[in-house]
Amino acid sequence: MKIIEKINTYDDFLSLTKEETSALCDEIRDTITDTVSHNGGHLSSNLGAVELTVALHRVFSPEVDRIVFDVGHQSYTHKILTGRYKYFDTLRKTGGLSGFTNPYESNADAFVSGHASNSVSVALGMAKARTLLGKDYDVVAVIGDGSLTGGLAYEGLTNASQSKEPLVIIINDNNMSIGKNVGGMAYTLQQLRINMDYLSFKSWLKENIFKTGTLYRIIHNSKEKIKGALLPNNIFTDLGFEYLGPIDGHDVNTMTNVFRHAKEMRKPVIVHVITKKGKGCAYAEENPDIYHGVGPFDKETGKVPDQKSNYSDMFGEYICEIANENRKTVAITAAMSSGTGLDTFKRRFPERFFDVGITEGHAVTFSAGLAKQGMIPVFAVYSSFLQRSFDMLIHDVSLLDLHVVLCVERAGIVGQDGMTHHGVFDVAFLSMIPNMTILAPASYAEFREMLRYAVYDVYGPVAVRIPKDSEGRYKECHVCEEQVLCSGDDITLVGYGSEINDLLSAADILKSKGVQAEVIKLGILKPNRFSETLSSLKRTGILLAAEEVCSSSCMGAIITEAAVKADVQIRDTILLNLGNGIVPHGDSNELRRKYRLDAVSIADEALKHIKNKNE
Amino acid sequence: MKIIEKINTYDDFLSLTKEETSALCDEIRDTITDTVSHNGGHLSSNLGAVELTVALHRVFSPEVDRIVFDVGHQSYTHKILTGRYKYFDTLRKTGGLSGFTNPYESNADAFVSGHASNSVSVALGMAKARTLLGKDYDVVAVIGDGSLTGGLAYEGLTNASQSKEPLVIIINDNNMSIGKNVGGMAYTLQQLRINMDYLSFKSWLKENIFKTGTLYRIIHNSKEKIKGALLPNNIFTDLGFEYLGPIDGHDVNTMTNVFRHAKEMRKPVIVHVITKKGKGCAYAEENPDIYHGVGPFDKETGKVPDQKSNYSDMFGEYICEIANENRKTVAITAAMSSGTGLDTFKRRFPERFFDVGITEGHAVTFSAGLAKQGMIPVFAVYSSFLQRSFDMLIHDVSLLDLHVVLCVERAGIVGQDGMTHHGVFDVAFLSMIPNMTILAPASYAEFREMLRYAVYDVYGPVAVRIPKDSEGRYKECHVCEEQVLCSGDDITLVGYGSEINDLLSAADILKSKGVQAEVIKLGILKPNRFSETLSSLKRTGILLAAEEVCSSSCMGAIITEAAVKADVQIRDTILLNLGNGIVPHGDSNELRRKYRLDAVSIADEALKHIKNKNE
Repeated sequence: MKIIEKINTYDDFLSLTKEETSALCDEIRDTITDTVSHNGGHLSSNLGAVELTVALHRVFSPEVDRIVFDVGHQSYTHKILTGRYKYFDTLRKTGGLSGFTNPYESNADAFVSGHASNSVSVALGMAKARTLLGKDYDVVAVIGDGSLTGGLAYEGLTNASQSKEPLVIIINDNNMSIGKNVGGMAYTLQQLRINMDYLSFKSWLKENIFKTGTLYRIIHNSKEKIKGALLPNNIFTDLGFEYLGPIDGHDVNTMTNVFRHAKEMRKPVIVHVITKKGKGCAYAEENPDIYHGVGPFDKETGKVPDQKSNYSDMFGEYICEIANENRKTVAITAAMSSGTGLDTFKRRFPERFFDVGITEGHAVTFSAGLAKQGMIPVFAVYSSFLQRSFDMLIHDVSLLDLHVVLCVERAGIVGQDGMTHHGVFDVAFLSMIPNMTILAPASYAEFREMLRYAVYDVYGPVAVRIPKDSEGRYKECHVCEEQVLCSGDDITLVGYGSEINDLLSAADILKSKGVQAEVIKLGILKPNRFSETLSSLKRTGILLAAEEVCSSSCMGAIITEAAVKADVQIRDTILLNLGNGIVPHGDSNELRRKYRLDAVSIADEALKHIKNKNE
Repeated sequence: MKIIEKINTYDDFLSLTKEETSALCDEIRDTITDTVSHNGGHLSSNLGAVELTVALHRVFSPEVDRIVFDVGHQSYTHKILTGRYKYFDTLRKTGGLSGFTNPYESNADAFVSGHASNSVSVALGMAKARTLLGKDYDVVAVIGDGSLTGGLAYEGLTNASQSKEPLVIIINDNNMSIGKNVGGMAYTLQQLRINMDYLSFKSWLKENIFKTGTLYRIIHNSKEKIKGALLPNNIFTDLGFEYLGPIDGHDVNTMTNVFRHAKEMRKPVIVHVITKKGKGCAYAEENPDIYHGVGPFDKETGKVPDQKSNYSDMFGEYICEIANENRKTVAITAAMSSGTGLDTFKRRFPERFFDVGITEGHAVTFSAGLAKQGMIPVFAVYSSFLQRSFDMLIHDVSLLDLHVVLCVERAGIVGQDGMTHHGVFDVAFLSMIPNMTILAPASYAEFREMLRYAVYDVYGPVAVRIPKDSEGRYKECHVCEEQVLCSGDDITLVGYGSEINDLLSAADILKSKGVQAEVIKLGILKPNRFSETLSSLKRTGILLAAEEVCSSSCMGAIITEAAVKADVQIRDTILLNLGNGIVPHGDSNELRRKYRLDAVSIADEALKHIKNKNE
């Protein structure tokens, strides 16, 4: 029987011997690798945090204390150790365990995670609440060096350092975000890592230097100044933290001792832990970025099956084509070079490639500066992370009507990554921004042309939104506000992006039942006068709009408003979208069925309403 | 003739003697104080930056080089020196000079400003564009210590420090944001200020310590380490910057020399300048926060006329009342204690008051941590600054349905502060957030009750939006989705917040012309079923919705959609709002007339449509 299977209580865990603990770590590694090889998920970051989490759980009680994981892509060990080992094979599946921490799933998950850099702010809020309410649990934030590049982390750190709150912040430093970490914080961490012998050096200094009479004579009236100079400070001590480290993040005993010491200090403490991404799994150690977030693969060899090319791959190809023609084009990514499809661009045009770290706000404002002085910046970013740039899009881009191109990737349902990652809000929040043009290609060919249109023909800010999937049955190319793809007088079906494929299939189903549906593809979501759509609605009287976005400001609502304004009488509206709730994780197709966005559901909805109206 | 009047060209300015320059600074101070005493504006920050700006202009050509001012509330001297002296009395007036930098106004204004912490990112983008395009101008960012608390500044700094781009970042350190600066960055700047003698100390160290044979013998194999330790680093050198300073920000010659040196270093350099807010004006030096942003006052004495109490004042009163009853209530501000009305709370409940610096993102996530552990956080923030928290509201608050209360101040038109400060988007971006409740009081009495309702009765996130103004003719109190304030069968007038006053007056005007308008006040913007409104529309057939928000997701659009869904036939819709463009600065009432939101315009619009429909 495995050790992990013998742990039924927290006390069982605490009573493990050193050897058993070591064996437990091996079992956890195997469980993680096994499940991720089947279900996909975050491999490298989780393998790197096994010992760290075991040490954490030895010092902090996961059900009583509050351990706030940043991003949460290192929380698998935590899940396995807190009663979720037996469900672990449901990871990221519909109705199964989330790939990130989620308090709805377990009380051991202190907070929601998925977006980077929030952990320190959350932990500080929790620590303050603890103190104000007179409770006595501990609060810990676990944050990677990648997440430290985000401004939110800095805001949290500058507040936490001065808070006087007992609070332990563990920096899980693997010298990576998803790809190679960048920027000044990476530089400063690197300096600290070079001083791996810092603590021993400090005590050596104390023993040898301060005892020297000669030095004291020289500096008799500047003792404090010299002392400060001899005990080197770093960015964290500058901010006011106690700093412990760096320590080996794969040595459970050392970490246990240092975490215990940090806990007992009763003040804001940073513990700097050095870990290795992919630790213990040869292929993941060698290529941590490939196995950061990965689909199913062969557990033995690590071989990842060839993937069908997707929209992000095509982006990589098309943007290189443009950069090759136009030397003013530059590409920007917020630590997502690989995910957004920019790896080739990075290799081919290194001077014009900017990985700015996990700093979506800066990425937009930096783009604005580039655009103001004559470059054409293209910022490739996942829809849900672009939410971080909302004010910068308004203040720094829109007010001056700057030509910043956004490639908004993973727009719509993203599947297994779930509620924090679905691209639900982009159409709504981009629509309200003055001067913004929004393009929604529905095929690769259309994407290529729309990207070119965005770079060459649009004045001012422009977003091209693409889904996570590959292209579907629709392969045509129409760069225009509206395109009638299929004519009919019974109902007007409107959509854009990959949803067009479902609408076309729904029209086929309806046709087989004797209903003639008109299918209209929106290519430009804003600005759009909807003249084809309104003239179609004049004939059909029924609008069905299907969209993988939230209900606020959805195109269906905007068309409804336009119809009333234009005095077009609509007998019925069927607005299919993701509503105003939270979209869970799971298989994308299952989620589409849940939200009635698949072809069969669309046809059903259409028939139901046509029938109702005819009765 | 004044010196300022004799400067016609940049060369005239450069050829001023030391004495003339000093006299020029006095004239500029007088001009600023004079204009602000009449027009209102930012006094203390501008008086503190006179010599700094003069020195900047001596080294960097404002029309050729790019000087990016952060926030821009220190840019008056820059405006006066770049051809705008003769228009300076139009400052902040309708059609006059903007109170912030604005490239639409002058090419000398390198970028738009108003929201804090963007300058480094903008400047880095500009510097990169300069280098990539082979141009040879200089780029400078001028950022205050307050703005340095914002995460965006940190994101910019961490990228700039590693960029190798020639770029000068001037930290204008007056140890204040608007009020007292807070957090770790304030602490680290304070440490640097204490070392005002840092540079001389460093050379003293070099002369005395490194020459000592004894020390070298002891540390023979650790020379580099010791050397690093003896030349103290700071947070900026940790990030990879060259650091110069601190230097006296009222000594034009020293600054000129250091700026010139920084420019010649051809790499990312930080120059740390110490200034005094309100410099040269006794009352502003003594009370820099009162004269930070101020209305008209007596120039001689500094006396500010008594102000009519406004919604922010009432917030201060009502939130203290609640905090007094309920010990779980805490208040959070992002460096806006005075502006948001929290000064009394700060004094009365210091343990439960958190000024987190200019960190709107952190403020929300910190609130989420507090709420998760049982406190009731109330974050008071201006509408346009809350845009910075958009993702945090979704990810950290909404997904867990946490009870975070937002007091969204300066919602709608704010007048003189202009395009960066109007609260135009909050209804639209808050509406799309799952679980969010939005309340819009229209009188003080209603505000008091709605704030209590938000704290005591709402589950999950809730926003109470209040305008900048005082209350108007409407003084009733109805905490409900909809309230019919005035009955009529000819047209349905819908609005909320202070717009209710104009709608009631418009109804009076219409009545005098024989038109019976129904006036419906929305109290809860979300969730709302609009049952009263729809039943009114069934009778009148005409919807007129007047709102001080952008057109996206405005209530008028949402009601239109609801009407179609409910099969209520609307003959006509008149949606009066701020549209999808950029709202300029100027007198609030003039702006309301421009957007047809005043009573007379509303009545006009109503009559026009009723007439059209009857023809």
